[in-house]
Amino acid sequence: MAQTIFTKILAGEIPCHRVYEDDKVLAFLDINPLSRGHLLVIPKEPAETLDQLSDDSAAAIGRVLPRLSRAVLAATGARHFNVLQNNGAPAHQAVFHVHFHIIPRFDDAGLEIEWNAGKLADGADLAKAIAAKL
Amino acid sequence: MAQTIFTKILAGEIPCHRVYEDDKVLAFLDINPLSRGHLLVIPKEPAETLDQLSDDSAAAIGRVLPRLSRAVLAATGARHFNVLQNNGAPAHQAVFHVHFHIIPRFDDAGLEIEWNAGKLADGADLAKAIAAKL
Repeated sequence: MAQTIFTKILAGEIPCHRVYEDDKVLAFLDINPLSRGHLLVIPKEPAETLDQLSDDSAAAIGRVLPRLSRAVLAATGARHFNVLQNNGAPAHQAVFHVHFHIIPRFDDAGLEIEWNAGKLADGADLAKAIAAKL
Repeated sequence: MAQTIFTKILAGEIPCHRVYEDDKVLAFLDINPLSRGHLLVIPKEPAETLDQLSDDSAAAIGRVLPRLSRAVLAATGARHFNVLQNNGAPAHQAVFHVHFHIIPRFDDAGLEIEWNAGKLADGADLAKAIAAKL
């Protein structure tokens, strides 16, 4: 895996505005926030995308998301928020080290989404096909 | 917490296209998918938003996200994907039981995002303020 700005932050070569750290996880402020309090939560384990991350690192991130979310809400006064994790450039990933965004939603700032939903046609077959790959 | 379509699915009162289940987590196909393979991953624990979910349930969801993502990619042929978790109606939450979306990204379908990023001004103070709420 190539060096990224996040591996350099983890190595202490680049500073960050750190909010939280444990043996598997680091959380710090995004320097290009979508809204006030926009936080990044990353594994210390090097992995480009979530499908490549170990179960233990993914569990460690999951475990701290509620606590970090509560702290972001309490400190910023936001009442709503999105958690987003992008994998692959076509899916808006810009840094190729796994990261979860916690993005507070304010009236005038936050994550803008378009929801172009369709209808599920072959649900039974598709569910079986996915389960078969587990 | 009010009954939702997801609590009814968990209770077996409404069917779903189930992909995965363990003692804390259920994953099934979204019936209004943004793309083929769009999966919902929910805790069995009732919680409206992620900030209200227990650490253990959140960890259990985190733990299965890599495995579920790999299965969705393998079954659909997608190479890229987004994980999204919305909290509050202004943040696009439609069902008030915590759910993580795994949304495959294809050329012509997936999650559409607008990224209106700003600059972090008072990072040191804001990081301290959030950490103080942990």
